Amino acid sequence: MFQNSELFSLTYGSLVAHLVNDLENTEGVNKQLERMGYNIGVRLIEDFLAKTSSGRCYDFKDTAEKIQLAFRNYLGVTPTVSNWNSQYDEFSLVFTVIPLTEFVELPDNCLDIKYCNILPGIIRGACEMVGTFR
Amino acid sequence: MFQNSELFSLTYGSLVAHLVNDLENTEGVNKQLERMGYNIGVRLIEDFLAKTSSGRCYDFKDTAEKIQLAFRNYLGVTPTVSNWNSQYDEFSLVFTVIPLTEFVELPDNCLDIKYCNILPGIIRGACEMVGTFR
Repeated sequence: MFQNSELFSLTYGSLVAHLVNDLENTEGVNKQLERMGYNIGVRLIEDFLAKTSSGRCYDFKDTAEKIQLAFRNYLGVTPTVSNWNSQYDEFSLVFTVIPLTEFVELPDNCLDIKYCNILPGIIRGACEMVGTFR
Repeated sequence: MFQNSELFSLTYGSLVAHLVNDLENTEGVNKQLERMGYNIGVRLIEDFLAKTSSGRCYDFKDTAEKIQLAFRNYLGVTPTVSNWNSQYDEFSLVFTVIPLTEFVELPDNCLDIKYCNILPGIIRGACEMVGTFR
């Protein structure tokens, strides 16, 4: 059995294409993707907590590891956690590959689209539900 | 590692919810989902052919089995093929569970929505590309 990432990525592509046709500007598309992600994250966190039996995070490094695990579980890719700042409250997630962008070529008039903007939305929604951001 | 069906199903839910808000009527939503599915099927078939090394179908029963296999590969569920007519050119795909409908409760004013209408669209697009429907 192969993974269903192709179907997911094509369905996500349909969603983005619809938003591009539907909304007036790139900024609106980016915003809407982030908002959709937020709503997904708010619901997906329950599934994550149930399946991983995760408890409360002790520190932000712990949070970063949980987010990393979530990407592995839901998207099948593990981003690298890096670029920590000195206060250890900022970091980067670096992806070498994202299944969402399979088959994707953005036309020239769409280069400002943050194609994967649903992902930061999901992180925001999920983290908000468990009280990471206050 | 658990499958990403939850993320897929929530993303699909966002798409349907957006169409419901966006389009005027249920019929429009159903049509748009089918159309999106068609466009996905047209592209997904290449991936299917490449990964399964499938050749030409000999008869419609063969076609039914390939469609069944595609559902197993991309959605992780295997529908039952049944209700063949006497000419063997019509059949039903019966699902006991569809991952897309996880977490879904349709509100009363959306009961006419064919929530999974992207699926027949995908079948139509994919089959058309390999010349099943003429």
